[in-house]
Amino acid sequence: MTAPFDSMWADLEPVGRDPRGGYRRFAWTDADATLREWFAAEAARRGLSAVADRAGNQWAWWGEPSAAAPGVVAGSHLDSVPNGGAFDGPLGVVSAFAAVDLLRSRGHVPSRPIGVVNFGDEEGARFGVACAGSRLLTGALAADRALALTDADGVSLARALGRQGLREPAADPAALGRVGTFVELHVEQGRALTAPVGVATEIWPHGRWRVTLAGEANHAGTTPLDDRRDPMLDLAALVTAARAAAAARGVLATVGKIEVDPNGVNAIPSEVRAWLDCRGADPDAVAAVLADLDRFAPRQESWTAATVFDPALAARLSGLLGGAPLLPTGAGHDAGILSAAGVPTAMLFVRNPTGISHSPAEFAERADCHAGVTALADVLAELTR
Amino acid sequence: MTAPFDSMWADLEPVGRDPRGGYRRFAWTDADATLREWFAAEAARRGLSAVADRAGNQWAWWGEPSAAAPGVVAGSHLDSVPNGGAFDGPLGVVSAFAAVDLLRSRGHVPSRPIGVVNFGDEEGARFGVACAGSRLLTGALAADRALALTDADGVSLARALGRQGLREPAADPAALGRVGTFVELHVEQGRALTAPVGVATEIWPHGRWRVTLAGEANHAGTTPLDDRRDPMLDLAALVTAARAAAAARGVLATVGKIEVDPNGVNAIPSEVRAWLDCRGADPDAVAAVLADLDRFAPRQESWTAATVFDPALAARLSGLLGGAPLLPTGAGHDAGILSAAGVPTAMLFVRNPTGISHSPAEFAERADCHAGVTALADVLAELTR
Repeated sequence: MTAPFDSMWADLEPVGRDPRGGYRRFAWTDADATLREWFAAEAARRGLSAVADRAGNQWAWWGEPSAAAPGVVAGSHLDSVPNGGAFDGPLGVVSAFAAVDLLRSRGHVPSRPIGVVNFGDEEGARFGVACAGSRLLTGALAADRALALTDADGVSLARALGRQGLREPAADPAALGRVGTFVELHVEQGRALTAPVGVATEIWPHGRWRVTLAGEANHAGTTPLDDRRDPMLDLAALVTAARAAAAARGVLATVGKIEVDPNGVNAIPSEVRAWLDCRGADPDAVAAVLADLDRFAPRQESWTAATVFDPALAARLSGLLGGAPLLPTGAGHDAGILSAAGVPTAMLFVRNPTGISHSPAEFAERADCHAGVTALADVLAELTR
Repeated sequence: MTAPFDSMWADLEPVGRDPRGGYRRFAWTDADATLREWFAAEAARRGLSAVADRAGNQWAWWGEPSAAAPGVVAGSHLDSVPNGGAFDGPLGVVSAFAAVDLLRSRGHVPSRPIGVVNFGDEEGARFGVACAGSRLLTGALAADRALALTDADGVSLARALGRQGLREPAADPAALGRVGTFVELHVEQGRALTAPVGVATEIWPHGRWRVTLAGEANHAGTTPLDDRRDPMLDLAALVTAARAAAAARGVLATVGKIEVDPNGVNAIPSEVRAWLDCRGADPDAVAAVLADLDRFAPRQESWTAATVFDPALAARLSGLLGGAPLLPTGAGHDAGILSAAGVPTAMLFVRNPTGISHSPAEFAERADCHAGVTALADVLAELTR
């Protein structure tokens, strides 16, 4: 597998580099278009038929799936967060193509079609909705709501698509109907996995809240401390309280995004907006954190209940892979969206030695990546016996 | 005075409105060019000779000043902070033109030339250096350093000037030499002034520091709290500590500007940068605050020692104005730069009933503004008897 596997990485390596480190591969940008061209070329190189669905996802099929005879699909996404790593997303797509190569080299003849997928806009880094491509596909995200989303420059999703010469997205039940089983391989994002490859049990419930901290704009040099309504102090209190509440409740809470108006050195801000990400195994504990922060009036922007992957499938794959560890994750994935839509779904994780992801420092050992490809090929072979 | 005074405000009112409130009149933008055209037209309307100096400032002269016979100059600036108010800057320029009108209506024949000035880029909102026009004029800011300054979009000052068809700035000792005395009228920026008009004694020493808080980028959903290096927590500690230190030392400290990388909802930041503004009557107390914050390694970006305005001139003007209150200010002004360059300088403040400035809510009563024009005319008459 080594030669084509390495060559795929080499082709992807320069696409969408972020000048401040890592990758900036936002949906419907020129970098994204280059990644889609790469995907179509990899499909063509293998004689797979590449098709785009109405929801902005790309599929490459070995065989001809139908609603009556749906296929087994592997894949992930190619977009990134700002300053993202090389593995989150691309590892799953590259490994799927490599697994097809490995199956063919073994002479495997699949009993059902095998597909490779590249889901569009998984990170939601540009328009704020994670897993937008898979949510559109399944209908979990309405097309009219998606089209009205805007990026940080005020560009709507509709306009971004138009700039790339693409038509408006829509739910695509026909494309979804061709997916009999979905297996997403992904780099692990914590340090919980100590074997090279593991199998996911569930995705924690998770949500995002927006907190608007109102102040009174004023001059930093002339306003006595006692006369101030400085929302930066409220931000400090929110950050501190969120961390304490999360620790007390045994879940994760993060304030990772901030907007300050007017954001001037000598201006007491008129408003600070902060986004809170909170998740954990127990949804009641997450709710308790939000209750602890009630005085900041957090407004929910999204909430995703726990996704429990098909337990029988997970157990079967773990057994097939020689007792691969079963573990949950706190990160959302397209696999969660498909599972929620009723598609039998599994996830394979490749070990992350540092636990770092969403960072230029994200890393997986080469030997573990190879083990991932072998495991994925074994799973696809098992599911298309 | 009412008709031309009102008409000047009406002409300025629509220029450079910020869609989020107030004004956005940054230096060397189209809005700034419109304000400069307005200044030249007001000069022409009065038969004053309008000239631009090499440092980006505009002058309108009644009479012909020279180094041997320098004039008395009134004025301020027309640019704004983001979401700035209508008065900070324009009140001084409009009042200077209105004072010329009032002097002429009284039949005053000045013994020395009288000038009106519009200093360029006083707020430093775009390129980060406050009082850039007056600093360039006096040589306090070197031209080559100014030209290399960049705005938030990476546009250099040199390029911004080129876009407006302007030549490169330089110190202009000849233009400075035409200023015998400078009087800046400005809206007060706190609530310390309870009379309609006051006279400034000094500008507090003030400085800006940059704090870089390093973290480790990671996924908000998969990184245990104990494994995190989250610089947002350090920001919270900095904001809280700065406020406590300022209160303890009896000075002002403000964190008004923040930059977060990558600023993603589900990403623990890799870095947070914060700017600290600190000032007060006692420079030793400011130094003590910075010492209190030493663990955050603040890096000084600017420091301006106290400016004490000519005490004899301040006392004379206070007496002339019927015992107008004498008061210090925490805000920097072009008057401070000229005073530091050895020009006899005074400032008149117009009462600010709310103390709010650098905000769309900045306000001065109409009657107080009229009192300011009368006071400025009286001062100019006294200084050109």
